[in-house]
Amino acid sequence: MKNYITRDAWKIVEDGFHKEFNEITESLMSLGNGRMGQRGNFEERFSGKTLLGNYVAGVFFPDKTRVGWWKNGYPNYFAKVLNACNWTGIEVEIDGEILDLNTCTYEHFQRVLDMQRGVLERECTLTTPEGKQLKIRTRRFCHMVEDESGAISYSITPLNFDGTITLTPFLDGNIQNRDSNYNETFWNEIKKETSFAEGILVMETKPNPYGVEQYQVATGMRFDLKKNGQILDFQSLPVRDEKYVAGKVPVQLIQNEELTLFKYAVNLSSMNHTSENLIPDTKVYLNRLAEKGFEQLLEEHVAAWAAKWEQNDIQIKGDVAAQQGIRFTIFHLQQTYTGKDERLNIGPKGFTGEKYGGGTYWDTEAYCIPFYLSTSEQQVARNLLIYRYKQLGKAIENATKLGFDMGAALFPMVTMTGEECHNEWEITFEEIHRNGAIAYAIYDYVRYTGDKDYLTEYGLEVLIGISRFWKQRVNWSVQKNQYVMLGVTGPNEYENNVNNNWYTNYIAAWTLRYTLEALEYVRNQGKIEDISSKVAFDFASETAQWQHIIDNLHFPYDSERQVYLQQEGFLDKELLTVDQITSHRPINQKWSWDRILRSCFIKQADVLQGLYFFEEDFSEEEIRRNFDFYEPMTVHESSLSPCVHAILAAGLGKKEKAYEMYLRTARLDLDDYNNDTEDGLHITSMAGTWMSVVKGFAGQRVQDGLLILNPYIPEEWESYSFRLGFRGVTLTVAVSQDSVLITNPSAAGIEIVVHGQKELVAGQKAFPLKA
Amino acid sequence: MKNYITRDAWKIVEDGFHKEFNEITESLMSLGNGRMGQRGNFEERFSGKTLLGNYVAGVFFPDKTRVGWWKNGYPNYFAKVLNACNWTGIEVEIDGEILDLNTCTYEHFQRVLDMQRGVLERECTLTTPEGKQLKIRTRRFCHMVEDESGAISYSITPLNFDGTITLTPFLDGNIQNRDSNYNETFWNEIKKETSFAEGILVMETKPNPYGVEQYQVATGMRFDLKKNGQILDFQSLPVRDEKYVAGKVPVQLIQNEELTLFKYAVNLSSMNHTSENLIPDTKVYLNRLAEKGFEQLLEEHVAAWAAKWEQNDIQIKGDVAAQQGIRFTIFHLQQTYTGKDERLNIGPKGFTGEKYGGGTYWDTEAYCIPFYLSTSEQQVARNLLIYRYKQLGKAIENATKLGFDMGAALFPMVTMTGEECHNEWEITFEEIHRNGAIAYAIYDYVRYTGDKDYLTEYGLEVLIGISRFWKQRVNWSVQKNQYVMLGVTGPNEYENNVNNNWYTNYIAAWTLRYTLEALEYVRNQGKIEDISSKVAFDFASETAQWQHIIDNLHFPYDSERQVYLQQEGFLDKELLTVDQITSHRPINQKWSWDRILRSCFIKQADVLQGLYFFEEDFSEEEIRRNFDFYEPMTVHESSLSPCVHAILAAGLGKKEKAYEMYLRTARLDLDDYNNDTEDGLHITSMAGTWMSVVKGFAGQRVQDGLLILNPYIPEEWESYSFRLGFRGVTLTVAVSQDSVLITNPSAAGIEIVVHGQKELVAGQKAFPLKA
Repeated sequence: MKNYITRDAWKIVEDGFHKEFNEITESLMSLGNGRMGQRGNFEERFSGKTLLGNYVAGVFFPDKTRVGWWKNGYPNYFAKVLNACNWTGIEVEIDGEILDLNTCTYEHFQRVLDMQRGVLERECTLTTPEGKQLKIRTRRFCHMVEDESGAISYSITPLNFDGTITLTPFLDGNIQNRDSNYNETFWNEIKKETSFAEGILVMETKPNPYGVEQYQVATGMRFDLKKNGQILDFQSLPVRDEKYVAGKVPVQLIQNEELTLFKYAVNLSSMNHTSENLIPDTKVYLNRLAEKGFEQLLEEHVAAWAAKWEQNDIQIKGDVAAQQGIRFTIFHLQQTYTGKDERLNIGPKGFTGEKYGGGTYWDTEAYCIPFYLSTSEQQVARNLLIYRYKQLGKAIENATKLGFDMGAALFPMVTMTGEECHNEWEITFEEIHRNGAIAYAIYDYVRYTGDKDYLTEYGLEVLIGISRFWKQRVNWSVQKNQYVMLGVTGPNEYENNVNNNWYTNYIAAWTLRYTLEALEYVRNQGKIEDISSKVAFDFASETAQWQHIIDNLHFPYDSERQVYLQQEGFLDKELLTVDQITSHRPINQKWSWDRILRSCFIKQADVLQGLYFFEEDFSEEEIRRNFDFYEPMTVHESSLSPCVHAILAAGLGKKEKAYEMYLRTARLDLDDYNNDTEDGLHITSMAGTWMSVVKGFAGQRVQDGLLILNPYIPEEWESYSFRLGFRGVTLTVAVSQDSVLITNPSAAGIEIVVHGQKELVAGQKAFPLKA
Repeated sequence: MKNYITRDAWKIVEDGFHKEFNEITESLMSLGNGRMGQRGNFEERFSGKTLLGNYVAGVFFPDKTRVGWWKNGYPNYFAKVLNACNWTGIEVEIDGEILDLNTCTYEHFQRVLDMQRGVLERECTLTTPEGKQLKIRTRRFCHMVEDESGAISYSITPLNFDGTITLTPFLDGNIQNRDSNYNETFWNEIKKETSFAEGILVMETKPNPYGVEQYQVATGMRFDLKKNGQILDFQSLPVRDEKYVAGKVPVQLIQNEELTLFKYAVNLSSMNHTSENLIPDTKVYLNRLAEKGFEQLLEEHVAAWAAKWEQNDIQIKGDVAAQQGIRFTIFHLQQTYTGKDERLNIGPKGFTGEKYGGGTYWDTEAYCIPFYLSTSEQQVARNLLIYRYKQLGKAIENATKLGFDMGAALFPMVTMTGEECHNEWEITFEEIHRNGAIAYAIYDYVRYTGDKDYLTEYGLEVLIGISRFWKQRVNWSVQKNQYVMLGVTGPNEYENNVNNNWYTNYIAAWTLRYTLEALEYVRNQGKIEDISSKVAFDFASETAQWQHIIDNLHFPYDSERQVYLQQEGFLDKELLTVDQITSHRPINQKWSWDRILRSCFIKQADVLQGLYFFEEDFSEEEIRRNFDFYEPMTVHESSLSPCVHAILAAGLGKKEKAYEMYLRTARLDLDDYNNDTEDGLHITSMAGTWMSVVKGFAGQRVQDGLLILNPYIPEEWESYSFRLGFRGVTLTVAVSQDSVLITNPSAAGIEIVVHGQKELVAGQKAFPLKA
């Protein structure tokens, strides 16, 4: 755990240069706008520890699978989000000395990510090895409106000399993914152009043998300069090299004169522009940016962020660390996915790193959709659902490869295009509960929005595909006289290849039930024939089979403790609690894999994940018994674990536990709890942090079309408030130590259930806080 | 399945050149002498499909582990037997045209591996692309006595021209292992020398970061020539290049003159020679070889093979395919391991290929030791046991890495030095039954030889280490009120991470029992204090704990069918038989891994392996019930499976099944059943073929110090006979369709139990064959 980030309500501040943590800071200070993004790398050369990262949404490469031992069924490639052309670079030369931030001494250094405005700023005073003292100020953003662009303002002032400062803004495509499986590079140069104060580099992803689309990305830059705030007439010498363009600008400066370079950059991808238009569109775009100029672009950008915060902010009073943590998560979620493009999704690291390949996981459905449902227009969550709908065909192909038929669909564990990328048999082939999460997200969306048309238009087809998979994935056990599901891995990945994982069985049976409901709804709408004939659905026989499974699926249960068993045979384990193995933690670093597997310890909620999803099916006492049984065995070594426990604990009135779990998620990256922030941020688990507050402390639910709140406040806080978009209105919920104040700016009132009481809220309404 | 090898009792014959199968032929025609070996590569250039392979026993390289996803506990390296300097090469140039066997046309072509004499021969008449017709005759062997050497006689005759033939015998160290994890090479050149008709190349394995010993190997060659059988005075031009030495010998020939090159080569490794002595020793060795000359060397070699066959041959009359098959297996087993050096062991491919790294597997204990016990001096099997004894310390370290303590030992799944090399969690960490096989081999050796002193000297220490492992590996299940063993993989690798694998539990409990017996024996010998203090053994407490486990370990059992269950929950599977999935076979090529895992289908005997090992603990009816339950579910997709079934089926009087299973093992490689002979031969499973005959058809067992035979003869055969070394005598057992003739050349008679009757056999004794 690190503690070098200054606590501030709106800013992530590094005071003094912590070189040793530079890769962590780069992750924390990543910028993005849903369309492109980048790590908080320096503009200048830095020969120290750094992970250069620039990413263009949706652009990936199918890297040849690497395994130790091949298992039949493994996919041939693992799609990797591509580390793309570096557009932020500015080489700085002072009287012939190249500035390397790693070799300077610093009189002053501050890096700030201003989350309110979405701007990365730096100010430092440094001395080079040759004794030149300089002041540098930078500002940078990825534009939230002009979302294929970014801009940099780079100011430099000689403090102890007169001399020549040469600035060389460049675009560099000599980039390798750090996690390349075989140390290969993935880009080819297609074209490059330079002209006065402009450079364009078009690159294409290398050919691949998997039939995966090749992408072209045109990266363009334009720059202009000011001296002491006045427009400067400058000379620029164009430079062209392999996958590299630049413009060299030498400027004579007198001591204390400030030179400012404005660099405008765009990344246009062939996902959104035809190949022929890439260069012309780049030029038009650059012209527009340069015409507006840095300050106007910044103004638009800050306004866009203000609107986002208006919708999304969570304010916490009395705890600046918690305030900073929650805003940090909201900020990054909003940077990563804006919901404008249904081809895009949310990679586990967003635009902050390469780890896990940047593909789509079930995290999206289980954790992110609730966040976007409450904080963004309905379209955003809907697009995330449509993303999967469009991949249904691939999910059916994927299931076919694994031996299923008749339209059974298995959505991949990790994917870009709908094809499976992951290659670890116990996950790829067996962590099939993900399929249930995709069904659940449809339910969750319809429940929250009331948009039942979605079922008819898209949802039912997906549900049928998934239900067909479950139908074929179970088998009849003569021994048990029940259906069983053999060989699965649940959300708790510290168990592999188990039989009758309770969570997976539950979500399978639930999917079948919900699909039957959805079928009934669509039939009542008179739309069933279209879908039935499209997917060759045999209504009578398939629904009867599903009902038979619903009625006869096995669920392991311990009648003595009255708890659901995580899987068959769980009670054969030595049942210990986490506090008995304190010196062995984290077990994923201290124990070999087999020891983890045969222990009782849980990585991430498994039975509890099911009780969270399907809360309404269980009594509070049941939930409590299971929580009390499993939580003490849970090591939370997945970033996705604590939030579910926080929500359940809050619901059970276990306030201390809820707060403890909240703390584990809220500052996970800011304080580098898991020693891995340098790889990038845990973007998807950030949605869990938001849920811990809204679904946990504030007890937000939706039932029968009604918004429900059961708020309480952790005693560590003075107050907290958040916005909630729900069916066309945006409510503000403000919770203090003794009351809940709900504000509905819409004239039309809305019925809300607060602490079990249904109330019509129009304007402001205060409720006493339940103890 | 291929059918191009001519059937012959003593020879492996390729008539006509089957270029497309060249890598298969190279595997089949591999040569070795226990100390070095090589694939049957051509001497001349061959631009077609070939896997060049030369190996020096014990010389390996720790190749950096390659995995898709790292699991805690994986070893850093995978030791690879090293493809070493190619010493067989002879470049041939005819009037400036380099001979490439791939581009010639053949009037005649025959390759023969003469197993009786241990010689690889080739005779062919060919025409080059430029129209030169040549006759070539080669003979090659790896010397069975001078076992660091080999020799080649290479004869070439111009048939349609007079001209210059230039022969360039060379040593080439530019070799890469085909299975190198990252396409790296593993050799550095240290030194090279050339002089007239001689070349020496010393190479060293590259440095590694794992503290693994680097090996040096000096490869030397000497050559001389004859023309039409007369010693030839020739010119030789030495050539030196990177990791390459050669001598270029141009000779003028008149049509039909035969030129013969004799090439003598040695491979001296730093395992057996000091670094300084490598070159001097090489020179001495080469001198000796050249002095003896090819024909004398050949004579010694053939005599050594004759002695081996005298001890080992199995003769089968009336079935040349079976005869060829069984001699093929005996030949390769004897080439691979001669038992002279306790540092060596039996790699799964011997000297015939690189696959599986050439390390030691439990195959040695479970399959090979019975073969060597019966066919070689006692010392051979004993050395195989001592190999493991010497690695006991590493096995304890290995267990410690996985969280065990107090001297618990886990022998590796794959190893060279005692350190684990394998990296597949379900195998590496969980296929722990291997530990039991190592204990069983001690029992098997003592039972066969009566050498109980081995227990005192070495065996007991190993047994204690393994027993301590089992003790810690089980845990008490409160639920079952018994001990359980969770998270293992049995011999049937088509199940992973199962609980209470019957075979593993059985061999664990058996190990504890046998260790208690061994302790008792050693205590009675008055030797217990030495061992107890050496391994800090707490007699009273440890033996009591073991007894408690023996008395309370859980064994899954189906009381309805009265069969042992392969593992917990086996009956939840859909119980199908192999004949119901004919079109899906082999399932390891047609099904994804998860489908294989959740099916009932068995790769290799699991419960049946236990019944085979511990036959005496079970009634024939029990064995029959289990055989009838499991065999129909067994796909035998491991080369190690059929032999165990053949033996059990034979014992149960299931003669057709026994013969079917025998056929699956006997010509596995000769007919390339599994489409993988090109990678090398299945050396360790060859011991299973031998067992199918001797333990299967002839029903050979040892009980209470007595040799037992229950022979019958497959009706397809006229007769078969084999030699059996047992406690100082070598018996011949000849079985015809109506009798068994046992010959004991030793004057002292030996008691043998034939068909249940104890008889003293001295000289010859005939018994009627039981129906």
